Amino acid sequence: MERIYDIGQLFDLLGSEEIKSIKKVTLQGWVRTNRNSGNIGFIELNDGTSFKNAQLVYSSDVDCYELLSSLRSGCAITVTGELVLTPEMKQPFEIRVTDAILEGGANESYPLQKKYHSYEFLRDIAHLRVRTNTFNAVFRVRNVLTMALHEYFQDNGFMYVHTPIITTNDGEGAGNVFDVVTHDSDDENSFYGQRVNLTVTGQLHVEPFALAFKRVYTFAPAFRAEHSNTVRHSSEFWMIEPEMAFCDLNGNMDIIEGCIKHSIKTVLEKCGPEMEFFNTQVDKGLKDRLNNVLNSEFKKMTYTEAINLLQEAVKSGHKFDNSDIKWGMDLQSEHERYITEQIVGGPVFLIDYPKEIKAFYMKQNDDGKTVAACDLLVPGVGELVGGSQREDRLDVLEAKMKELNITNLDWYLDTRRYGGCYHSGFGLGFDRLLMYVTGMQNIRDVQPYPRTSNNIKY
Amino acid sequence: MERIYDIGQLFDLLGSEEIKSIKKVTLQGWVRTNRNSGNIGFIELNDGTSFKNAQLVYSSDVDCYELLSSLRSGCAITVTGELVLTPEMKQPFEIRVTDAILEGGANESYPLQKKYHSYEFLRDIAHLRVRTNTFNAVFRVRNVLTMALHEYFQDNGFMYVHTPIITTNDGEGAGNVFDVVTHDSDDENSFYGQRVNLTVTGQLHVEPFALAFKRVYTFAPAFRAEHSNTVRHSSEFWMIEPEMAFCDLNGNMDIIEGCIKHSIKTVLEKCGPEMEFFNTQVDKGLKDRLNNVLNSEFKKMTYTEAINLLQEAVKSGHKFDNSDIKWGMDLQSEHERYITEQIVGGPVFLIDYPKEIKAFYMKQNDDGKTVAACDLLVPGVGELVGGSQREDRLDVLEAKMKELNITNLDWYLDTRRYGGCYHSGFGLGFDRLLMYVTGMQNIRDVQPYPRTSNNIKY
Repeated sequence: MERIYDIGQLFDLLGSEEIKSIKKVTLQGWVRTNRNSGNIGFIELNDGTSFKNAQLVYSSDVDCYELLSSLRSGCAITVTGELVLTPEMKQPFEIRVTDAILEGGANESYPLQKKYHSYEFLRDIAHLRVRTNTFNAVFRVRNVLTMALHEYFQDNGFMYVHTPIITTNDGEGAGNVFDVVTHDSDDENSFYGQRVNLTVTGQLHVEPFALAFKRVYTFAPAFRAEHSNTVRHSSEFWMIEPEMAFCDLNGNMDIIEGCIKHSIKTVLEKCGPEMEFFNTQVDKGLKDRLNNVLNSEFKKMTYTEAINLLQEAVKSGHKFDNSDIKWGMDLQSEHERYITEQIVGGPVFLIDYPKEIKAFYMKQNDDGKTVAACDLLVPGVGELVGGSQREDRLDVLEAKMKELNITNLDWYLDTRRYGGCYHSGFGLGFDRLLMYVTGMQNIRDVQPYPRTSNNIKY
Repeated sequence: MERIYDIGQLFDLLGSEEIKSIKKVTLQGWVRTNRNSGNIGFIELNDGTSFKNAQLVYSSDVDCYELLSSLRSGCAITVTGELVLTPEMKQPFEIRVTDAILEGGANESYPLQKKYHSYEFLRDIAHLRVRTNTFNAVFRVRNVLTMALHEYFQDNGFMYVHTPIITTNDGEGAGNVFDVVTHDSDDENSFYGQRVNLTVTGQLHVEPFALAFKRVYTFAPAFRAEHSNTVRHSSEFWMIEPEMAFCDLNGNMDIIEGCIKHSIKTVLEKCGPEMEFFNTQVDKGLKDRLNNVLNSEFKKMTYTEAINLLQEAVKSGHKFDNSDIKWGMDLQSEHERYITEQIVGGPVFLIDYPKEIKAFYMKQNDDGKTVAACDLLVPGVGELVGGSQREDRLDVLEAKMKELNITNLDWYLDTRRYGGCYHSGFGLGFDRLLMYVTGMQNIRDVQPYPRTSNNIKY
């Protein structure tokens, strides 16, 4: 057997001197397609180290011809052959196979036969759909996007913190939590001696770390037991929650803009073939939209201005599903998209929201009516990030928590009692960012094994 | 206000030309200690961007003298002053303060007054202990170790996969799982329409990704509802589970050795002051032990050989708590440590364990009695990593699962039905690796908010 190469390695070596010196290679991967015309055959082989396939050529004068010509889609093989550069052809190189081993077969019941498969069909075989072009691209970008976010925060002096998944608080008081229990005794809460649930946010737990390490972030699963059966809701998702001490709302928005731009830029640079695929096969305007974000200075607009502009739009005849625009309302996706797409024509932060529609920990502005929140709206989606400066005044925060009947967070108040300072943070839904970056329209199609209500086969 | 620097930045700039050009700086952080002798005072300021403190000097001829001299441990401040390099002193620079702002006070009830605090005491204030030297160092190393592991796998062509937390299977059939329920209807399983639990391992879910992307890894929380109240058990922990297609047991051990060495090397390189602290204050032999691992070639020994050697040790008079050494037994920590510390004197892989004491998915060896498993034992701890080649023969795996009455994993068997291949993987408990690297003796002291039974304040 010759030296084993990843197919991705060979593509990376194209144009180098090194590849010219390679005579024979061994590849290991899965047959995507196999066609032959009597005495010559062609196999598209993918080994998952590249979005692209390697082309194998085999002729009837090799011993393994019979084996190779019998291979169906899905088979795992080890092949050895001559590497031939073919710069004038559609594929830049081919492997003229001399030896082959069948590692694992796949018969006609293999669900991924060569034909069109709907996303719905593929969702039902989440363990196999990863072998298709689309999901190869999705999960490759998922990996690059994850590391791009880590890179941004690490390079900017943020420390990664693993906040807990099992917790006693429900974060924003939203209520829709999954409880965590054991069934080894009559008392389902006996393990911890109290009722516990899956976290909805790591923010409360990460704030004390910001007040010790200055800049920190979480990147972990979060959970909502919402029966929202939409394309953007999943009961289990990954979230990034940075938190910065000595940072006000403007500093917060700088970090949001920085991390969004860095992650988009990195994916465009590192995932050329994948992004080309999404741009042509999934979402025609994708690359233009992402480049527009990259090249925009993110605008800022107060919630109050936005309400005024939406009211003007209604007066001028624009119809929303909900056209009853009033100060104090929670904006719907249609309103957010109108603002970012029609009014601004690019990314925009809405700031200073009414305090009644935002979480208890957001800093109250001097007007007594609004809080120092910032939601980032982007074309094509609406809200992508939500953040705020935090209420750092102990008395104001205590009064607010009393009003909302939030108890059992005395430890959290310590962060305002002892060495508190102005600080800010935000939450970025990772799966939604991945949808935005790939143009995929359903959150179920960007998660390895999506967890939505009534759907948990694996 | 002058330009704001992180204290870590200033330490990083020491020895450069740049630092000589800096005249005045603004720092923001928390007072560790404050002492003054009438007309001159010294504050140790930490801002979490460095293990080390900056020394602030203030004299009675500045306006803010009264404020500064009143500051207690824990206060958050913004200070501006002249940066003076003091290479002949214990601290390499000091800040001669001219202006100061109190951001957040801390009175005498602040729990971290300057005195000795036991780990037990500090565990009860997990949200504040991060402001102490020890936990500053622990969580700084936790961050570096996390990224070192990501770096190793990314640089070696592995793709990061987010396997699900909520699942229907209990992985290794261990049984001690947390159930996930909702309480909004009579049926606690109504959300997903079936009983679900927190994952104990991502392995089964990541294998299908290995069989599409060749090399993948998880890095995510895992859960065990075990009432083991030991210093090494936590009900919630982070685990890394790499999985490689076309990789046998030897390839698996190469990757384990590579990732352990890379992560130790990176921590020693990047966390000099922290590791010096652990080596002097926490565990005197730490750095020698880690360097020994770095410089060792990891040995290999079969389980059967190990049993023979343990039996010989007993015959020669060595006493174990359990000295009834028999082939087929599960080795205890005392046996594992004897092998790695006394017999080998360095890291060693034990391979080819009896099939009865290992998981159903491990590949059966030709002897019919053992499986192609590998546990890495290291001095000072015992088992650090467990891995195996996977059973890729559909008929053998099906028979094994039938024998153990494992059902509802038909999707998993598809990975053997369609394009299966020889493949391997392992599990590395991240928190235990962090204990090993820092010398910290209790898992509760390396996790941000440890979750052990009957202990969940936050």
